[in-house]
Amino acid sequence: MKNRQFLLASRPTGEPDASNWEYVEKDTPEIQDGQMLVKVEFISLDPAMRGWMNDAKSYIEPVQIGEVMRAGTVGEVIESKHPKFQKGDHVYGHLGVQAYAVSDGSGLHKVDPALAPLERFLGVLGMPGMTAYFGLLNTGKPQAGETVVVSGAAGAVGGVVGQIAKIKGCRVVGIAGGKEKCDFLINELGFDDAIDYKNESVKDGLKRTCPKGVDVYFDNVGGDILDDVLTRIRKHARIVICGAISQYNNTTPVKGPSNYLSLLVNRARMEGIVVFDNAAHYGEAAKEMAGWIHEGKLKAKEHVVEGLKSFPETLMMLFKGENFGKLVLKVDH
Amino acid sequence: MKNRQFLLASRPTGEPDASNWEYVEKDTPEIQDGQMLVKVEFISLDPAMRGWMNDAKSYIEPVQIGEVMRAGTVGEVIESKHPKFQKGDHVYGHLGVQAYAVSDGSGLHKVDPALAPLERFLGVLGMPGMTAYFGLLNTGKPQAGETVVVSGAAGAVGGVVGQIAKIKGCRVVGIAGGKEKCDFLINELGFDDAIDYKNESVKDGLKRTCPKGVDVYFDNVGGDILDDVLTRIRKHARIVICGAISQYNNTTPVKGPSNYLSLLVNRARMEGIVVFDNAAHYGEAAKEMAGWIHEGKLKAKEHVVEGLKSFPETLMMLFKGENFGKLVLKVDH
Repeated sequence: MKNRQFLLASRPTGEPDASNWEYVEKDTPEIQDGQMLVKVEFISLDPAMRGWMNDAKSYIEPVQIGEVMRAGTVGEVIESKHPKFQKGDHVYGHLGVQAYAVSDGSGLHKVDPALAPLERFLGVLGMPGMTAYFGLLNTGKPQAGETVVVSGAAGAVGGVVGQIAKIKGCRVVGIAGGKEKCDFLINELGFDDAIDYKNESVKDGLKRTCPKGVDVYFDNVGGDILDDVLTRIRKHARIVICGAISQYNNTTPVKGPSNYLSLLVNRARMEGIVVFDNAAHYGEAAKEMAGWIHEGKLKAKEHVVEGLKSFPETLMMLFKGENFGKLVLKVDH
Repeated sequence: MKNRQFLLASRPTGEPDASNWEYVEKDTPEIQDGQMLVKVEFISLDPAMRGWMNDAKSYIEPVQIGEVMRAGTVGEVIESKHPKFQKGDHVYGHLGVQAYAVSDGSGLHKVDPALAPLERFLGVLGMPGMTAYFGLLNTGKPQAGETVVVSGAAGAVGGVVGQIAKIKGCRVVGIAGGKEKCDFLINELGFDDAIDYKNESVKDGLKRTCPKGVDVYFDNVGGDILDDVLTRIRKHARIVICGAISQYNNTTPVKGPSNYLSLLVNRARMEGIVVFDNAAHYGEAAKEMAGWIHEGKLKAKEHVVEGLKSFPETLMMLFKGENFGKLVLKVDH
């Protein structure tokens, strides 16, 4: 069987481009005892991937030059010599940007395609959903009646953060780019209000939508928006640092939050999260979130782009703010 | 009786200078029922005073133009028509930069000059001591065996932070300017090591003194030193934002910590503190700290400058890093 893969060819300076990838077609190797062959159906495209391309100490090893690019995936086991996985099983795991993957089962777990469309296990039922759930509840600690603001609100994590905050009885404001996304947040996801950063200054938007200030800010973007929110936090506010997509392609140093002394004035806290720390509790979270989905309180939106070969351009949609919901690449088999 | 006062004449841009102060001599008013006259003996000079000169929302109201400059003080009641204070009582309170003050007792409490020299109630037994105690223990939460780093370590707060961290069984490294201060931290206060930022890059110093990284960082200075420490924090580190003296006289925007995404990588936390929030617990803290002083575990150092009229220049010693221990102004009566 012919495999198709994207390997990391070089490390980007600033925005990744075609030269950073090597596209390879080659035969899928024979599987050995204890291995299986997975047909990759959907590949998760996430802002974190930009960080994995850097040769820098982080919460996870960098992808090495010449390796298949790391990515979360869902797929189907089509051959197995592994005792715990059978042909026909559907699985989630970091199998990378390729059409087929040989796996020994490490880091893989089964998913049930009867519960939800497969791509959803890369979104609300996958890492972005878990990130939102644990980041908001364990670190943001929202209380009923508080005001929660989330940036990247129409993205994979942000949309879930806002909906869970609503479930917890908070007033929720999303920051997103464009009227269509903002309307979606309010009309489809039930946010109380939204700030369209492409058409309104975020500072003005925060005054308009959060007259009493912000208790919890869930930050996916960093940069100027983080700085603007810092001017509007309330006493004992909690800022969850989940990501900083505005800064990932910088060729100059990251913009630190100039207004960080607002943390002092307001006795507030800024704390970073990494979803993998909660692995032992994914099961409970998935169960609770599945209940919310079933009750119609938690909606999912995926943005599916088809065609493995479009990977380099499709990934860039994240950094241009072009995705609307969880961005996934559907492998064309 | 002739009073001498420093009033805020104008708000500084950048470093305060003579033009920001009005020096006034005038008669002390007659006290009314419920009031007392206090002879101010020592005036506390603190980095926070710079913030009080700005017309900006903060944790406390700005000083108004034409008002006596706010400052912590200790003094003696020399006349009283107040039911709770007698002539001869010694008191602590924010009576401002002046030789005599009329007070109705609000915010005043008695101190016992038999327990310690009066100026000490502005240092280790006063707000700086309380700031160190609550900021380190409640927010830094140091555990025995952890590495604690403190900047402004030879200052009023920093010296106490380091000594309490030692009492709690931590490895303690101080950052200070100059060999004399660094030697003092190690030889007199019992710090494990020190980084002289005037003669060593802080980054190199951190590598040298904290090979395993930093668990708790108590920040009094902000700026580049905060950024350097961020590159060396360990997983689940706690950064206590107590002040940012390097930034208080900025005419350009505050330098935000470019390396703040280290909070994400390390699941670490940065949190601001304001000492006044702990007012209900000052008594317990003072009792515990007095015990440590008695046992010789907690040493105090004040830097006393005499002469009320030197206030404008003496205040600037803080921003030039020229004070060595808690800076107090002794009123020349």
